[in-house]
Amino acid sequence: MGWGDLGVFGEPSKETPNLDRMASEGILFPDFYTANPLCSPSRASLLTGRLPIRNGFYTTNAHARNAYTPQEIVGGIPDSEVLLPELLKKAGYINKIIGKWHLGHRNKYHPLNRGFDEWFGSPNCHFGPYDNKERPNIPVYRDWEMIGRYYEDIYINHKTGESNLTQIYLQEATTFIYKYGISKQPFFMYWAIDATHAPVYASSRFLGTSRRGLYGDAVREIDFSIGQILEFLKNMGIAKNTFVFFTSDNGAALISAPHQGGSNSPFLCGKQTTFEGGMRVPGIAWWPGQLAAGQVSYQLGNVMDLFTTSLALAGLEPPADRQIDGIDLSPVILEGKEVERPIFYYRGNELMAVRLGPYKAHYWTWSNSWQELSQGINFCPGQNITGVTTHDQVEYIKPLLFHLGRDPGEKYPIRPSSAEYQNVMLGISPVVRQHKDTMIPGEPQLNVCDLAVMNWSPPGCKKLGKCLTPPESQPWKCVWPH
Amino acid sequence: MGWGDLGVFGEPSKETPNLDRMASEGILFPDFYTANPLCSPSRASLLTGRLPIRNGFYTTNAHARNAYTPQEIVGGIPDSEVLLPELLKKAGYINKIIGKWHLGHRNKYHPLNRGFDEWFGSPNCHFGPYDNKERPNIPVYRDWEMIGRYYEDIYINHKTGESNLTQIYLQEATTFIYKYGISKQPFFMYWAIDATHAPVYASSRFLGTSRRGLYGDAVREIDFSIGQILEFLKNMGIAKNTFVFFTSDNGAALISAPHQGGSNSPFLCGKQTTFEGGMRVPGIAWWPGQLAAGQVSYQLGNVMDLFTTSLALAGLEPPADRQIDGIDLSPVILEGKEVERPIFYYRGNELMAVRLGPYKAHYWTWSNSWQELSQGINFCPGQNITGVTTHDQVEYIKPLLFHLGRDPGEKYPIRPSSAEYQNVMLGISPVVRQHKDTMIPGEPQLNVCDLAVMNWSPPGCKKLGKCLTPPESQPWKCVWPH
Ligand SMILES: [Ca+2]
Ligand SMILES: [Ca+2]
Repeated sequence: MGWGDLGVFGEPSKETPNLDRMASEGILFPDFYTANPLCSPSRASLLTGRLPIRNGFYTTNAHARNAYTPQEIVGGIPDSEVLLPELLKKAGYINKIIGKWHLGHRNKYHPLNRGFDEWFGSPNCHFGPYDNKERPNIPVYRDWEMIGRYYEDIYINHKTGESNLTQIYLQEATTFIYKYGISKQPFFMYWAIDATHAPVYASSRFLGTSRRGLYGDAVREIDFSIGQILEFLKNMGIAKNTFVFFTSDNGAALISAPHQGGSNSPFLCGKQTTFEGGMRVPGIAWWPGQLAAGQVSYQLGNVMDLFTTSLALAGLEPPADRQIDGIDLSPVILEGKEVERPIFYYRGNELMAVRLGPYKAHYWTWSNSWQELSQGINFCPGQNITGVTTHDQVEYIKPLLFHLGRDPGEKYPIRPSSAEYQNVMLGISPVVRQHKDTMIPGEPQLNVCDLAVMNWSPPGCKKLGKCLTPPESQPWKCVWPH
Repeated sequence: MGWGDLGVFGEPSKETPNLDRMASEGILFPDFYTANPLCSPSRASLLTGRLPIRNGFYTTNAHARNAYTPQEIVGGIPDSEVLLPELLKKAGYINKIIGKWHLGHRNKYHPLNRGFDEWFGSPNCHFGPYDNKERPNIPVYRDWEMIGRYYEDIYINHKTGESNLTQIYLQEATTFIYKYGISKQPFFMYWAIDATHAPVYASSRFLGTSRRGLYGDAVREIDFSIGQILEFLKNMGIAKNTFVFFTSDNGAALISAPHQGGSNSPFLCGKQTTFEGGMRVPGIAWWPGQLAAGQVSYQLGNVMDLFTTSLALAGLEPPADRQIDGIDLSPVILEGKEVERPIFYYRGNELMAVRLGPYKAHYWTWSNSWQELSQGINFCPGQNITGVTTHDQVEYIKPLLFHLGRDPGEKYPIRPSSAEYQNVMLGISPVVRQHKDTMIPGEPQLNVCDLAVMNWSPPGCKKLGKCLTPPESQPWKCVWPH
């Protein structure tokens, strides 16, 4: 979902009353970011508190490429990474993931091997349907075992966009909350829904109800469901003990707009890019009775902060043996403080840009290649800013500098000869130098693909008669075109 | 000010707490329009309830050109037009205009000749400073007579952007409200401020306080002042008797962004164009105790409706001897109704586009000419949609059709071969045909310019020693390049 998809962030149809209310009861973060303009790396960062370049969720197959975890990917979240649920578990938390995992689908990467106690959802995107010969349909798991496959047992209708998935995810959420809420058991729930990810879906109750078409139906159902979850927490009397945060793993995918993609307005471009539209995401903190209601925080936040913040709120320390990029937002949330910190914008193995305060410096720009553009692939439809939305990978000795307060759309680079430019870069340059000098990249996980590793025979397939025979292993260097 | 300049409409710095509160206490109109993408014609429409093509605020000097009232303009609001204050006066209202009049600066067009009882402000934009030889500085009036000139007696500092004007306008407003509020005298106040119009200004208290730079300082001061006015109405105990509406005369001027122009996001282009960014404007109705608070109305509204609605609320009928384009919004505001009606988008003498329901059909597109573009004049900076933001005047036999709910940015024309297109045009075509067939254009007022008519010797100049000698009359056909 994109920043601009929320009513409170100016979507003109104003169809997110529950999220808007969540903001009015909590803290709205207009300057919140994801760790990567693509799903898998962002989710790896959320659960590790570390940039993808550190936790391995990137590729070195080509320069500055976005990579994720389709089912032919061999890699996943490395053993050496410490995940949020693994740490919370030690403090007695019960952890559940509902929805898309996306950190590796092979058995060694199974979320129940990585600190989660329960899972309902899928390891990969709900792409398909496939023929189960060239490519298996994506399995859906309950806990350790698959319970079926998308397009076979889990209904998604491409033509109408109908699917009950969000309703199922909502049911899973309230059941989980009820079970552990009633027993006063501390819990962590990662509600990783994906209705706004193409192919976009909504249940029959929401289909055709939005002023924005199918994508809006999906947004409305998510908004409704979040309202239900918050209401459920209140009704159970545990809202004041439950910290809730709403955010997104990347900006709206403009390439599939308008039917399958949303809004990042007023920001430039969308998913896949390191412009604001790719990485600025909604951020809402909610914790009735603990946070002052109706606040706006200008804190630069990042999904990685949810790792560190959640640990802090649980009375835990982050691992001391590694660099953690997420910061503890609890002083921001509880005491209204604001902490200076940079935001790093990566595309694969390249630091593309850095934000510090209101300023953003692009060291590299690339929207996508000329070749892709000529094929109609465009991550910035209708937007064309000379020298900014470049179709060559352009490196800048003198970075392209923007003031995001005056110019949230990254349209007006500040002149390098200006005093403002020179002063600002005096602050940004050492931050970048220090970051690069101390960076120890993790082993890249998204380099190797192999049809043999796909979801042919997930655990539980035998019982269901749904095991498929994999082809022989023939690994190749995955191709990441952008 | 642009639609996207309000926090409640997603400006990321969220710097309009008073307007946002006004919306939460009143009704927000995300689908509100001005009558023209330029200031003077919109203001003429606001006060007459009629499209510029009817009330004469357009030009026929060239096809589809925007025109306004610089001080060399000979025309102004015709005698034959009936203005809102003229009608309200008959019902016992006292009427004041504070700020920019813009409906003609020659004495016959003086607002106190047109129903207003009081005036503090200027007849034209606060452009300048001028040399008083080639061109006089713009006068500022109190009631019938000038009290000084911009840049001479009224301080505006181009370099720092400092001016106390909004504070003066605020003082004028509260004084007026106090005077007639205390005596229970019905009043109409037209608070026509212009701090966000280039050259943008703010008072020292607000200068440098916005995260958005000078433009944001001006927005903050306007927001603050509106908060003060609403508070004042509440404190006087007359809020429940006072209908207040906030809107703008055109979209933000992107050509002067980011320092002198704001945001129309997520809409396409800005001031001067008939894309949404040029004509969709903020709309907030406020009337505590009379309207249900915190509502969003999807009613297609227009500044012309404020004419008809104000009359209705005052128990008056609009003139029956002419076509009125504004509709009475009181059932919308008081009873939550929604009325189907078209929005007409004109550029000068040409009907460029029509909106009906969520659909908008462009019969003509033109952002501006190639010649202007080559000179750096661009009303759609960073936006380039092939076949939409055209630099030739393009007429469509099969109009360009957009669904503004799915596609508020006018990026994805609906295919003319689709059933949707054909169905929708079956509804729009007769509305356009009827509109054109019954249109009786007014005498165009913005065709003739003459240096002799400028503000050389406004009433009151003698007392001040500020009379200047006009040159000989040499009228010419005004040139309107876009
Ligand atoms: Ca995603
Ligand atoms: Ca204006």
